[in-house]
Amino acid sequence: MAETTETGRKVTTSDRIKDLILSDGLRPGDLLPTEGELCTRLGVSRSNVREAIRKLSTLDIVDVRHGHGTYVGEMTLDALVEALVFRGVLSPGDDLDALRDVVEVRKALDHGMSEQIVDALKGTENSELKALVDEMTALAAAGKTFPQQDRAFHTGLLAKLGNSLVGQLVAAFWDVHTAVLPKLNVAVASDLEQTAQAHGLMLEAAESGDAEAFRAAITAHYEPIMRALEQK
Amino acid sequence: MAETTETGRKVTTSDRIKDLILSDGLRPGDLLPTEGELCTRLGVSRSNVREAIRKLSTLDIVDVRHGHGTYVGEMTLDALVEALVFRGVLSPGDDLDALRDVVEVRKALDHGMSEQIVDALKGTENSELKALVDEMTALAAAGKTFPQQDRAFHTGLLAKLGNSLVGQLVAAFWDVHTAVLPKLNVAVASDLEQTAQAHGLMLEAAESGDAEAFRAAITAHYEPIMRALEQK
Repeated sequence: MAETTETGRKVTTSDRIKDLILSDGLRPGDLLPTEGELCTRLGVSRSNVREAIRKLSTLDIVDVRHGHGTYVGEMTLDALVEALVFRGVLSPGDDLDALRDVVEVRKALDHGMSEQIVDALKGTENSELKALVDEMTALAAAGKTFPQQDRAFHTGLLAKLGNSLVGQLVAAFWDVHTAVLPKLNVAVASDLEQTAQAHGLMLEAAESGDAEAFRAAITAHYEPIMRALEQK
Repeated sequence: MAETTETGRKVTTSDRIKDLILSDGLRPGDLLPTEGELCTRLGVSRSNVREAIRKLSTLDIVDVRHGHGTYVGEMTLDALVEALVFRGVLSPGDDLDALRDVVEVRKALDHGMSEQIVDALKGTENSELKALVDEMTALAAAGKTFPQQDRAFHTGLLAKLGNSLVGQLVAAFWDVHTAVLPKLNVAVASDLEQTAQAHGLMLEAAESGDAEAFRAAITAHYEPIMRALEQK
């Protein structure tokens, strides 16, 4: 069921539930009115409300807890990750355009945020990030990959910025990157040690306030994966 | 209905439909098997298939054309835009953190992609982008805003890169930006002329291969909106 605004925009039941969340002043984690109450307040059918709730649930705008009720969701970017992973996998044959696109966007965000990251970390010590670098270095020396530590390092670095969107985006792209990589049979970048070391250089450069060295470390960080993608 | 893989990941009906799209070699725009065929092939109930199709439709992984059938979707980022717009509107009171986050990400992507854009445009002439700059300049002189031209300029610039993800992301953030702006009662940046002019400088710098001037123009481009956000 869709109404139309004065400006001609179609207003769906899911739009009206979103408006109700706003007008009731509900926050993530708050309980929504029951299905029956939503039907009454919006003057729409139960199947209508159910379909809208399902859609909002896919977008993590609401969180359906079976047997408990429906809550305002945390609005994570999980749906974006799912859509992008599938797009990455679906892309033509063994050409790696979709993965290359994701890696380029990750690199662009790291470069584009470099000034703010260096500003935020200058003169600080970040033992939790240093510990991750040490773990990555040890694993690389043993010929092992380090996806958890790698993801934790990048999200930890961006957490210093207080921009929740960029942190979530980088985490989302990181997940797309690691999900698509094995499905596409790309060799894991042989140079694990270079990657591990580049994280250490990024941290050192940021803590010492050296923006130029930070950007050089970002480039070194992506060099093995970019090389692997170009060789295909 | 969810099965579990050997590695413990839950496999939902929507995952299995995605696998079927891959194994059947379907591409965006191709017709999916009918609901009945999906039930038979996947061994699940009709309500199960319907719910999965609704979810995949929200993510634009499939496109339900009523009376015609269900097709493989174009996998646009419309769902991301919807989720981010709502998150932006829902963010606390009149503090503009969510919009500031979006503007910072737009700026970071523009800066992060600057080298590739300058490389792609160096020595070229782009009359369609120039025409957009001229329109923006004329509208600014008349005290009018120019959202369509602005969006077309940014997406047109990024279209030169052949990275469809970054183009879609920038378009998505642009839509979030313009959708959230009026709802939050931010004054439209007073300096329309500076914004119009900055687009012209970005284009000139890219065409003449001057990466430094290009980055300076990006900063000038975002200066009015950043100023408006800081004044709130």
